Amino acid sequence: MATVRLLSDEDASAEALAVFEDIRATRGTDFINNFWRALAHDPQLLAATWARLKTVMAPGALDPLTKEMIYLAVSTANSCTYCIHSHTAAARAKGMSEAQYAELLGVIGMAMQTNGLVTAMQVPVDEEFRVE
Amino acid sequence: MATVRLLSDEDASAEALAVFEDIRATRGTDFINNFWRALAHDPQLLAATWARLKTVMAPGALDPLTKEMIYLAVSTANSCTYCIHSHTAAARAKGMSEAQYAELLGVIGMAMQTNGLVTAMQVPVDEEFRVE
Amino acid sequence: MATVRLLSDEDASAEALAVFEDIRATRGTDFINNFWRALAHDPQLLAATWARLKTVMAPGALDPLTKEMIYLAVSTANSCTYCIHSHTAAARAKGMSEAQYAELLGVIGMAMQTNGLVTAMQVPVDEEFRVE
Amino acid sequence: MATVRLLSDEDASAEALAVFEDIRATRGTDFINNFWRALAHDPQLLAATWARLKTVMAPGALDPLTKEMIYLAVSTANSCTYCIHSHTAAARAKGMSEAQYAELLGVIGMAMQTNGLVTAMQVPVDEEFRVE
Amino acid sequence: MATVRLLSDEDASAEALAVFEDIRATRGTDFINNFWRALAHDPQLLAATWARLKTVMAPGALDPLTKEMIYLAVSTANSCTYCIHSHTAAARAKGMSEAQYAELLGVIGMAMQTNGLVTAMQVPVDEEFRVE
Amino acid sequence: MATVRLLSDEDASAEALAVFEDIRATRGTDFINNFWRALAHDPQLLAATWARLKTVMAPGALDPLTKEMIYLAVSTANSCTYCIHSHTAAARAKGMSEAQYAELLGVIGMAMQTNGLVTAMQVPVDEEFRVE
Repeated sequence: MATVRLLSDEDASAEALAVFEDIRATRGTDFINNFWRALAHDPQLLAATWARLKTVMAPGALDPLTKEMIYLAVSTANSCTYCIHSHTAAARAKGMSEAQYAELLGVIGMAMQTNGLVTAMQVPVDEEFRVE
Repeated sequence: MATVRLLSDEDASAEALAVFEDIRATRGTDFINNFWRALAHDPQLLAATWARLKTVMAPGALDPLTKEMIYLAVSTANSCTYCIHSHTAAARAKGMSEAQYAELLGVIGMAMQTNGLVTAMQVPVDEEFRVE
Repeated sequence: MATVRLLSDEDASAEALAVFEDIRATRGTDFINNFWRALAHDPQLLAATWARLKTVMAPGALDPLTKEMIYLAVSTANSCTYCIHSHTAAARAKGMSEAQYAELLGVIGMAMQTNGLVTAMQVPVDEEFRVE
Repeated sequence: MATVRLLSDEDASAEALAVFEDIRATRGTDFINNFWRALAHDPQLLAATWARLKTVMAPGALDPLTKEMIYLAVSTANSCTYCIHSHTAAARAKGMSEAQYAELLGVIGMAMQTNGLVTAMQVPVDEEFRVE
Repeated sequence: MATVRLLSDEDASAEALAVFEDIRATRGTDFINNFWRALAHDPQLLAATWARLKTVMAPGALDPLTKEMIYLAVSTANSCTYCIHSHTAAARAKGMSEAQYAELLGVIGMAMQTNGLVTAMQVPVDEEFRVE
Repeated sequence: MATVRLLSDEDASAEALAVFEDIRATRGTDFINNFWRALAHDPQLLAATWARLKTVMAPGALDPLTKEMIYLAVSTANSCTYCIHSHTAAARAKGMSEAQYAELLGVIGMAMQTNGLVTAMQVPVDEEFRVE
């Protein structure tokens, strides 16, 4: 249950609908997932968020699958249920194999564990890690 | 300032020292960073943590640099200062370019932002994300 | 599904019921939301939590709506589903407009994003921010 | 200690410098705080972040001080040391009184406490909070 | 809804099934909870996680109930719904009384509250807390 | 560096000083740690926080050392540097042995790891954990 109504194409404003159309064209699918339908109450925030997402997740120095796995790692540490589902699905759609997924889980678990140990002991940063 | 003393090679037990030696041999360096010197108070936890880390971070379906970036993403979301420094240094040592680092930061920022928006609106998971 | 049973008025102790009555009188409604029914297993914790909440959320140097929005911001960063729903409802009941809600979401998203960027880069605090 | 060097005006690219100049003009001060000097390594991310921040934090349905307090609340829940210092300073610069600050702290503490209690007991969301 | 299918005994590999059998023998029950059925997709991660858990949660300098309550406290601060349910059930199975549970909740709430206050004010660590 | 000045006995109000005196009498020491000196700007919040802490951390169904370890576990998951130092010191003052501390760290690390795995896979709660 959401704190806002999800806007159908009929309920969305013209400005929001224009963003929906760009999402559809960019992704090559008619499907608009709930995140965008919730954001559509504020067409300016919707447009700004989609514009940034399109830029940030585009192929660049990092490939799109790597970006999805990083996104999923952050979303897991932040306990964002929706984000975990949407970015797991996106990573699989971009070719994440079950072996890659298993290793991703292994790294997330390892990082969480050592984050806890390091924080509990308040380990001081080594001078060797200093950026010149 | 740590909650435990960092153990030098002289202060470490034989069991801890054996782990230090394996870290040195595996990494091809004499340097032992503070995390291991803090963990050395509990040689069993030290050994178990190092053994898992060596397995999890080894090349596999994901390459070592990708694993470091995922580790760094989790550590950032968990605000683990030491981990952020050590894994940024490790990622650079494994070849992370400045362009890759900039995109990594961009993805982390984007994920944090949408995690917040999605959580605030409690967006329900789309049926389309269901695993068969 | 909760880890405790929610106590109805019939199941609650006299001490818990007295807190329920004060909640009803203070809020001018017969409705007792689930948080209090869960806490009622420990009447002392129930009474202490309600007493503090009544004091903290009362009008003062900050108005009640501003307080609800701050409460909602913290609850979002902590991924507290129940709290997000209850304080979004409370903020709306206290007059939060859709425009205010949209700006609140914008600030939460912006803060999450820059929290991630700052933490990832471990930006040192400027001397200019020092309190005299 | 940061994971990147902070760029002085001399080290910053022309594109980054243009953002610095807009920050100076907008804020009416010559001071550029460390966050922007760290972000300057990626002029595109710097420009996008500043552009969003300027829009999001501008006066609107919520006044700038309320926005700063919400920003501070999120930053506290996320343990972002730098952000806490910079947004506490910004809130004071925008007129936050000590009485307002004290109440802000009270609400943050209360929210954190009940977030913990609610999450520990996994209190189910009341039907009464459902958005029509 | 999970991001992976939960593996029944029939679907699990021989290696995963061997872990299931050790869980059953160790706990003296036929019941395998969903966490292990989800992890079974990666028998190596399943085996490593179970082996560590068995070691870490065994009676030692701390008794098993104390360990469960600490586990529950961490899981609450991390908003891990599943973990909260499974470790509340485990703590009760190991004898946690309702009075102990109420005090555990009280400590969690208190810690969350003061974590927020301390972090918001960025209180510097007293020299008196330094480890010699 | 704090966002508020730490109040010495000379700077504190009479109401704050009365709380300082109760802390001293209760703990049998003249030492007032920085948390209380920071909170002293708001005598009412200081008094309410100390009153709750004294109640919550008193011996009851759980012994004071167990309560300190739970407090430390929450503070670690919340990355509260000050709280980690103060409650590690308090736990040691209440008799925590190095063996107990090592096991506490082991449980925290294990919980963090499985929190991450469970959250990443969004494991559904078993019906067996339902409270009757």
